Amino acid sequence: MEFVRNAWYVAGWSSEFDEELRRFTILGDHVVMFRKSDGAVAALEDRCPHRLLPLSQGKRIGDTVQCGYHGLTFDCSGKCVRVPGQSNLPASAYVEAYPIVEKHDIVWIWMGDAEKADPEDVFDMPEFTDPAWEAHQGDALHLKSNYLNVAENLVDPAHVSFVHPTTLGNSASENVPVHVVTEGKAIVAWRWIRDAEPIGFFKSFGGFTGNVDRWHYYYLYTPCTAVIDFGSAPAEDAIPEKERNRGVRIFALHFMTPVTPTHTIDRWMHLRNTALGDETAAAQMDVMFRKAFAEDKAILEAVQEEESRPQKRRPIRIAIDKGPMVYRKRISELLERERTHDVASDPTPAFVYHD
Amino acid sequence: MEFVRNAWYVAGWSSEFDEELRRFTILGDHVVMFRKSDGAVAALEDRCPHRLLPLSQGKRIGDTVQCGYHGLTFDCSGKCVRVPGQSNLPASAYVEAYPIVEKHDIVWIWMGDAEKADPEDVFDMPEFTDPAWEAHQGDALHLKSNYLNVAENLVDPAHVSFVHPTTLGNSASENVPVHVVTEGKAIVAWRWIRDAEPIGFFKSFGGFTGNVDRWHYYYLYTPCTAVIDFGSAPAEDAIPEKERNRGVRIFALHFMTPVTPTHTIDRWMHLRNTALGDETAAAQMDVMFRKAFAEDKAILEAVQEEESRPQKRRPIRIAIDKGPMVYRKRISELLERERTHDVASDPTPAFVYHD
Amino acid sequence: MEFVRNAWYVAGWSSEFDEELRRFTILGDHVVMFRKSDGAVAALEDRCPHRLLPLSQGKRIGDTVQCGYHGLTFDCSGKCVRVPGQSNLPASAYVEAYPIVEKHDIVWIWMGDAEKADPEDVFDMPEFTDPAWEAHQGDALHLKSNYLNVAENLVDPAHVSFVHPTTLGNSASENVPVHVVTEGKAIVAWRWIRDAEPIGFFKSFGGFTGNVDRWHYYYLYTPCTAVIDFGSAPAEDAIPEKERNRGVRIFALHFMTPVTPTHTIDRWMHLRNTALGDETAAAQMDVMFRKAFAEDKAILEAVQEEESRPQKRRPIRIAIDKGPMVYRKRISELLERERTHDVASDPTPAFVYHD
Repeated sequence: MEFVRNAWYVAGWSSEFDEELRRFTILGDHVVMFRKSDGAVAALEDRCPHRLLPLSQGKRIGDTVQCGYHGLTFDCSGKCVRVPGQSNLPASAYVEAYPIVEKHDIVWIWMGDAEKADPEDVFDMPEFTDPAWEAHQGDALHLKSNYLNVAENLVDPAHVSFVHPTTLGNSASENVPVHVVTEGKAIVAWRWIRDAEPIGFFKSFGGFTGNVDRWHYYYLYTPCTAVIDFGSAPAEDAIPEKERNRGVRIFALHFMTPVTPTHTIDRWMHLRNTALGDETAAAQMDVMFRKAFAEDKAILEAVQEEESRPQKRRPIRIAIDKGPMVYRKRISELLERERTHDVASDPTPAFVYHD
Repeated sequence: MEFVRNAWYVAGWSSEFDEELRRFTILGDHVVMFRKSDGAVAALEDRCPHRLLPLSQGKRIGDTVQCGYHGLTFDCSGKCVRVPGQSNLPASAYVEAYPIVEKHDIVWIWMGDAEKADPEDVFDMPEFTDPAWEAHQGDALHLKSNYLNVAENLVDPAHVSFVHPTTLGNSASENVPVHVVTEGKAIVAWRWIRDAEPIGFFKSFGGFTGNVDRWHYYYLYTPCTAVIDFGSAPAEDAIPEKERNRGVRIFALHFMTPVTPTHTIDRWMHLRNTALGDETAAAQMDVMFRKAFAEDKAILEAVQEEESRPQKRRPIRIAIDKGPMVYRKRISELLERERTHDVASDPTPAFVYHD
Repeated sequence: MEFVRNAWYVAGWSSEFDEELRRFTILGDHVVMFRKSDGAVAALEDRCPHRLLPLSQGKRIGDTVQCGYHGLTFDCSGKCVRVPGQSNLPASAYVEAYPIVEKHDIVWIWMGDAEKADPEDVFDMPEFTDPAWEAHQGDALHLKSNYLNVAENLVDPAHVSFVHPTTLGNSASENVPVHVVTEGKAIVAWRWIRDAEPIGFFKSFGGFTGNVDRWHYYYLYTPCTAVIDFGSAPAEDAIPEKERNRGVRIFALHFMTPVTPTHTIDRWMHLRNTALGDETAAAQMDVMFRKAFAEDKAILEAVQEEESRPQKRRPIRIAIDKGPMVYRKRISELLERERTHDVASDPTPAFVYHD
């Protein structure tokens, strides 16, 4: 499986990095990461160019990394600054260094052509810094699944009725059609379920007793970021589509990191306009999210296993698959673009937020 | 490894099926099976044609099966009867349905062309319904072995002297030649050991103290059914070959189900003309069979491992291999027949019982 | 991975063999070995030519081995001496027999053309029988690594400063250049560290308190034998290179046995000119060696894993790699020689000891 390389991927939450050398696997490559003495995160190819020992098995000497086999030493730009037993430092003795951006307690890495890495393209949302909103980091879910299927699940409102009947969906939405539009770089799949029983999540966190209007907007950005805007408001308010802030509203964010072709990490968190400052409520939301995402994991890992078997006939696509199909098409285009040297095109799969 | 598909295979004992959706793997394919409301067993391809989720991870809605991912629903003929979110039901939204026959507490499945499945071809023996005989189901032995080697072991009287010296064989038979004949669709390998010490099995269950005449007739039917007719009678009776019912006589039945190219289930049971109604004796026989079949399993799994390694030279074949060689030839012919569309030939590997 | 076959390899310490049939895997081949009634070790291909059952799952009948499936029986030359059920013994019913030499409590095996096996070529050193020296067998270290990387580690004095800083190396040697010469069939990499703090090993076993002169001579013999001559003497003695016996001197011997392309056994032992008769000291040396070799194992297994991944660019070679590079070249030559039938050349990678 090819990966889109010219893009920002989440390497980890900020809390995952400190002065220790740690190995991360991203897009199939091993990367050694650590915080330098100035606190910034450094990321190097985790393989000495000499005998291929992972540098993460060596040790830090100040802001350089010394290989644990023969002592070759590299600075944070990847340049070799010492070869024990000889004075010349061959030009081929280097390791890759990867651009890093840290923002909103998230560490992003660029695994492609370094000169194309623009920090402005890193995902952002105004709600991160809006006092009416609160951000809360959840967890890192490991899935034995390719990232494409994980991403498709995140632009697919239809599955919640069947996969998450006690948390994020219920039978009221089974037959409600899904709308799919593209808004710039986002693919948006959405639907409103009007005047129906609230789902488990909003029974717990909205305090709703009567019927509600409920919405799900799934924004998927290539290659690996998803924002699920969902919420509820009392049915009697009949709020218009554009005034969702009047209800209880959650942005569930998912940052997918392809580890290998069959292993993906989904780091998930949320932004909410309710229960501000209430860490207990946030922790209880995590419990419910964890339950729902474990249901997704079971599905996606079973699908991965089936996809790895010989296929007797092609799978079918149905009405609700429009969002996933647009996503696949966009990924194919990005990959095709990276296979060639098209100096005229814009290769940046940037985040653009619309609401 | 190719499998013969136009044949009845044992899917399980009747007791293995109830109203729950269960996954079985047969000839490398995943099959979801359950009993319908009328008690009959249904068998469907265990993979939704949409996102490939196993249907066994979904749920039953009456006599239909609903996929656990997006709710596509299939009836027992494999036809899709619901696609949530749309009203049209595309013709390509189907799963395979497999013909099933249940007889003598055994469930048989047909994995090939459904129109060739003739219930008359399912294995049968008159002793199943003869009051002078009693049937007793043993167990399901899982072997990490291809089914061909398991089958060959069941048309091979010579190995019992060396593999089962305390149960089904002893040294008296080491050098007794094996006769091999074909009787219609059966390959028969047999020998008599006259006037010798009884083997462990008949010391325990025949009550023999002096020398006996002992016989072993191995009937092998392509692709996967074996009947081992073995027994003993007092040597002084000198019973003729055709009058084996005068002695203590056992039919050990083996139904092999190829799971994958390197995994076979051998479901074994017996019919006996002794100890009728004596469940304790039957259980004691199971103990002895289990011991012997564990010996076969150790051998066959070691052979499988060796066969999977690069071969420096071809294995040799010796006099006792005649039965296995005829079997391989017949399997090759069946496979060759299935590779083409020979409308004139008889593709049925039917059971024909001769005695 | 191809292996050099026309060479003596260590099959095991003498203590690993008795009358039981045991399976060993050497150069990827399975070998069944046991001591005959006269005490000599026999080695046969561990696979019956009939149904491929490992002979090690059969049983000994005197000095023959009987297959556990159908009783085919082989003598220690590999000849079939019995086929139950028939009187003729086909010529193709044989197994390979491997030449064996047992010397200094070590069992050597020849996996190549038997007619080229010359017992004179088996590794030897005069110190094995010199009363001023004592031999002590250590252990068998299993490494998930190809043997080439293990061997290279044993002609590489430079790594000890970084991999074994508390036992066999220290920082004093980090920048001391390595000399590499060839002496007949040996590749020798060596260096002296003059007038420096003793390493951990000689603090423990030399009783040194002040500075010492320390030497490391790594002798590597193709394909799989290494002798590391290392020791120390008081710096004030300033002993010449040729008079190393005046110091505390250890020969650490390593016999590598390639098991598979990614699994190597390193059987290690030592000869010492100190602490003669002192088994407690020998056991304490083992503790220190074990610690150091576990450090090598961690390095080599990580390197193996990296080497098995796709390579984006070729690894680099530096000044200290001269010994390993000569070794690779010699192995390539031996392999090339075995690919053809060069009747004029000398194919013996014999041991020649120089000091």
